[in-house]
Amino acid sequence: MEFSALLTSAGINIALCILYLSLYSILRKQPHNFRVYFGRRLAEEKFREQVDYFSFERLLPTAGWLVKAYWCTEDEIRRVAGLDSVVFLRLFIFSIRIFSITTLICVFGVLPVNYNGQEMAHTRVPAESLNVFTIANLKEGSSKLWVHCTALYVITISACILLFQDSAERAYRKFVRVKLSAFDQNMRSSLNRCGLCGVQASSFELYRNKFVEAKKSDLTDPEVVEAQKDCPGAIVFFKTRYAAIVASQVLQSSNPMLWVTNLAPEPRDVYWSNLWIPYRQIWLRKIATLAASVFFMFVFIVPVAFVQSMMQLEQLKQMFPNLRGALKTSFCVRVVTGYLPSVVLLLSLYTVPPLMMRFSAIEGSISRSGRKTSACTKILIFNIWNVFFVNVLSGSVLNQLNVLTRPKDMPSMLAELVPKQATFFMTYVLTSGWFSLCSEILQVYNLVYNFFRKFICCYQDEPEYVYSFPYHTEVPKVLMFNVLGFTFSIMAPLILPFLLVYFCLGYLVYRNQILNVYYPKYEMGGKLWPIMHNTMVFSLVLTQIIALGVFTIKKAPISTGFTILLLIGTILFNEYCRQRFSRIFNSFSAQDFIELDREDEQSGRMREIHEHLLDAYCQSPPGSADEIPMEMIMEDPAQEASNSSQELCDTVQEVAGSIIQEHIEERHGSSSGRR
Amino acid sequence: MEFSALLTSAGINIALCILYLSLYSILRKQPHNFRVYFGRRLAEEKFREQVDYFSFERLLPTAGWLVKAYWCTEDEIRRVAGLDSVVFLRLFIFSIRIFSITTLICVFGVLPVNYNGQEMAHTRVPAESLNVFTIANLKEGSSKLWVHCTALYVITISACILLFQDSAERAYRKFVRVKLSAFDQNMRSSLNRCGLCGVQASSFELYRNKFVEAKKSDLTDPEVVEAQKDCPGAIVFFKTRYAAIVASQVLQSSNPMLWVTNLAPEPRDVYWSNLWIPYRQIWLRKIATLAASVFFMFVFIVPVAFVQSMMQLEQLKQMFPNLRGALKTSFCVRVVTGYLPSVVLLLSLYTVPPLMMRFSAIEGSISRSGRKTSACTKILIFNIWNVFFVNVLSGSVLNQLNVLTRPKDMPSMLAELVPKQATFFMTYVLTSGWFSLCSEILQVYNLVYNFFRKFICCYQDEPEYVYSFPYHTEVPKVLMFNVLGFTFSIMAPLILPFLLVYFCLGYLVYRNQILNVYYPKYEMGGKLWPIMHNTMVFSLVLTQIIALGVFTIKKAPISTGFTILLLIGTILFNEYCRQRFSRIFNSFSAQDFIELDREDEQSGRMREIHEHLLDAYCQSPPGSADEIPMEMIMEDPAQEASNSSQELCDTVQEVAGSIIQEHIEERHGSSSGRR
Repeated sequence: MEFSALLTSAGINIALCILYLSLYSILRKQPHNFRVYFGRRLAEEKFREQVDYFSFERLLPTAGWLVKAYWCTEDEIRRVAGLDSVVFLRLFIFSIRIFSITTLICVFGVLPVNYNGQEMAHTRVPAESLNVFTIANLKEGSSKLWVHCTALYVITISACILLFQDSAERAYRKFVRVKLSAFDQNMRSSLNRCGLCGVQASSFELYRNKFVEAKKSDLTDPEVVEAQKDCPGAIVFFKTRYAAIVASQVLQSSNPMLWVTNLAPEPRDVYWSNLWIPYRQIWLRKIATLAASVFFMFVFIVPVAFVQSMMQLEQLKQMFPNLRGALKTSFCVRVVTGYLPSVVLLLSLYTVPPLMMRFSAIEGSISRSGRKTSACTKILIFNIWNVFFVNVLSGSVLNQLNVLTRPKDMPSMLAELVPKQATFFMTYVLTSGWFSLCSEILQVYNLVYNFFRKFICCYQDEPEYVYSFPYHTEVPKVLMFNVLGFTFSIMAPLILPFLLVYFCLGYLVYRNQILNVYYPKYEMGGKLWPIMHNTMVFSLVLTQIIALGVFTIKKAPISTGFTILLLIGTILFNEYCRQRFSRIFNSFSAQDFIELDREDEQSGRMREIHEHLLDAYCQSPPGSADEIPMEMIMEDPAQEASNSSQELCDTVQEVAGSIIQEHIEERHGSSSGRR
Repeated sequence: MEFSALLTSAGINIALCILYLSLYSILRKQPHNFRVYFGRRLAEEKFREQVDYFSFERLLPTAGWLVKAYWCTEDEIRRVAGLDSVVFLRLFIFSIRIFSITTLICVFGVLPVNYNGQEMAHTRVPAESLNVFTIANLKEGSSKLWVHCTALYVITISACILLFQDSAERAYRKFVRVKLSAFDQNMRSSLNRCGLCGVQASSFELYRNKFVEAKKSDLTDPEVVEAQKDCPGAIVFFKTRYAAIVASQVLQSSNPMLWVTNLAPEPRDVYWSNLWIPYRQIWLRKIATLAASVFFMFVFIVPVAFVQSMMQLEQLKQMFPNLRGALKTSFCVRVVTGYLPSVVLLLSLYTVPPLMMRFSAIEGSISRSGRKTSACTKILIFNIWNVFFVNVLSGSVLNQLNVLTRPKDMPSMLAELVPKQATFFMTYVLTSGWFSLCSEILQVYNLVYNFFRKFICCYQDEPEYVYSFPYHTEVPKVLMFNVLGFTFSIMAPLILPFLLVYFCLGYLVYRNQILNVYYPKYEMGGKLWPIMHNTMVFSLVLTQIIALGVFTIKKAPISTGFTILLLIGTILFNEYCRQRFSRIFNSFSAQDFIELDREDEQSGRMREIHEHLLDAYCQSPPGSADEIPMEMIMEDPAQEASNSSQELCDTVQEVAGSIIQEHIEERHGSSSGRR
């Protein structure tokens, strides 16, 4: 592809973007679209629908929304949309910062070196092949490779500093403060399960009284044993958060599959239809979904290969002989080779998120946030493999698999192929990146649905459903562009300005959407940050590996040595971060919980919290007319104020232990030495 | 090598074995050797030295000790030598069982198939090349490969059943019961450290009173803060085991490197000189020792390559031209090619354990058992790499490293090379295996040392030192033979009878040594079992991968398919075991600890235990004259019987929290929002 083709593509996309954004600024002002563009505000009922008077201004595109989105503070966003939005927007801030630095260095430092890499007569820039701007243009043994090596050092060190400083610890402190509602405790026993049909609301029963009586009298009461048998899971309440965290983090029984305890997800976050799954099935389910995901990942190579074949004009002519006429026009050629392939790829990628979400549900997570996090990881890996690797390692499917089995040849192979695919990824950023932002802000699907509902079907009532933010599709998308940015930074710096525009526009668009459209139904508690962190480190390592390959091919031993040093440093940095931060994202610390408990005690809120425990966990949304009464196994600590939390914890264990023991003896007819 | 050379080697070794064992049965009857052969019994002073009367019987070899070793019950062994000995002997029982089955199947099923694999005129068996007995003798596309596939299935399934049934859970139950002394709790803070010199006994101080007072009055007392600053680690005592396990398993602070809690090793198990190491150094130390171990592993290829070259007669003649004369004798040739190489390898392997033990000490484990476990893993991986892989992948060093980078070619390469090296490994079993048993029972080094001490230097006093069992050298050795047994089982079944003899003899010899010689100084708590389990599964998977290679080379697609199924099954089995058992080997369950606590309470031992806490942790052995008084930071729960363990735990945390907070504020001059 020539530079002019790239400009054509960029031109089309800039025009489309301006069109879409103007359209948005007009459409959002129409009162009948408020349901589409101000879903969150309407859900919170702070935003009253204005009187539907007509003014000419409503038909003029304006940029006021951009200004509003930009000036909103982070605290306000956290208040209205939760910690996850803040984490998500921090990803954009990180990206904008690191790619500002990268763009500066690579466009003004690396790009001229690439362009003047070989002694050749340069034609006019627009007619220049894009390969001239990549590292492929440099001669073997070029003395200018130290520029690339230095750029790599600057990028890596900046990224590490930014990753370590703008995020993990601060996010965590907020995370604890926000999760004030996490005073509950979920204990899951996989001793029995009530069939394969999933648990209906009516299948829960209130065992409190039975257990409280049983504790004081006869633990071997057949009624209690029977009750336990029917119950694959239970939510147990503790008086303090500290007691709950102790019960969740301590290994309960010497068979770790018999009694599994986790902190309960917050009420709205519980994924009720997975609560029945016995723990002993979960590892098998995880392996099965992993296998299915991997299988799907490789099957997906077929559409990607089709996209690849569209890039080659000759192959295209062979496949569709009757298009030959049209393909003779230079403009058509540019559109077909520069624009269509990534649209096809984009459309076929739309099938991935629902499927991965399905896989993650089958996996057995008991919280919606867990399911979303798992789907997010799957989609991310899928994207990196199918968008990045398969496109780079173009060729037959067998060829691609072959690379996996020869890791040693990987760096040099990537080094040779990555610069060649720079063109494709530039257009990918333009179409997939910019275009996805536009369609995100326009909410095309909802707009059309709303239109048909209101004006064709003439429904007058407002639809009840408000969407929650689709982190599982948006996070992988943004991370994918980060991967592209890092890997292409020193290979083909021309991609960087387009990316920077994407991140800046994305920051504004998503701020606007978070503030106006999406309603956070549950808190994920910053669980996405480790995924982001790991992907960043992965991109850095991948970039360094590719650079290693380039330096080896171009015969620059000193640069190779320095890159190996940098690689080791990056891995050590990651290991340190893992040691330092990974545990706090998976569990809470006793210190924080004790502090929160004390605050509650001092403020006198304890009594109130205990009273609200009873109706906290409810399968239908609270406040709705047909509210189902609280039906689950629980120990209500407020009722037994004389027992310390320690004792309560003991009791739960004792009750359970005895019942399990009873059950074992019943089954095997043997009597073990335990009481 | 011919079959007769193997017989020569076997003959030499059998003769040596009988000689050594007879010698042992005579030497053990000499009273002046009692210190060497009955160290444990003397240490326990149950074995009174008999009057030194002379009888002719003392000079006759007898087999009574074998009978005694055989008839001792497992309970007795556990009582006198701890759980680890039982686990170690269970490894032998497992090996004997599985290799009885394997030998039966492979010698009577697989061996004849191999021998008749090609239509050829067989010469007399003694003059037959050993290759005839291996799978290499089978033709391509042979229809008899299903025999090998079936044998592989039988071996894998038997091994999995034996691994799952004779060990993990039962071992664990015992493990908990035995560890009655584990009521202590070690908390290590890495906030400060007292220099790089290691902690002397005198640098510990008794902070109890300070802390107990401080809790009730002023936590910000500068004296307490000062005390905390000097203290890199502390041992904290709790009233109940349950409280200790809660404190050890719950994440204490939101910076996981600030407050690290572990269950304290039992008093004799504490590795005092590592207590000062701040936790934030430990991950770096681990990475550094890992790098050093890997480096040493590859450096060691040099002596192994030397051993390899000795196997090739022609190369040997080139290296040592003046040996040409001697090498013409057929007997000499047999000795040099069949016996010497493995002796050289054996001797050079003696340098490995001390070095790996050093590495593990540097790694920073706070318990002796942790250090030994880590050394054991290192030595095992070292042996598998340097004894198995390097010998199999013989050739230049570069060649060997090349294989690592092309994992896809690994199966077929191994399949081609493993049968070729069968000869070497057979002689390795004879020399390294049998010979090491003989030298183990004879205790040559101690015998000579004792002799010189008594008769040359004329010392009359008995040396005080009794050795503890060297699990870190013996376990890898035995596991190495398991790896060899599994991998060669269907490739070259001729190795199996030699191995079976090794395991049977080893079982008796080690039982004898455990009963008479070694004195268990500390309990490792069955920590070695996971290593054994993982090695077994690794061997099975390796065997299957090699078999895959063989079936691919020999063009047996059906067998290949079935082997892939078996491989997946084995990996699933391992995953299940990991889910089911891995956690209980790393931590205790609350249920068990609560039961133990109750038992103590009911038996009225509580008071007594609390009183003994004070002198439980002491750097010099208890009972010795120069006992250093108990000097460490502690909360003595017996002194404050009114506080519940929960409160105690809170208090420790509170004290620490405040101090840390104080410290942070002092350092940074900032005041955070915390109390």
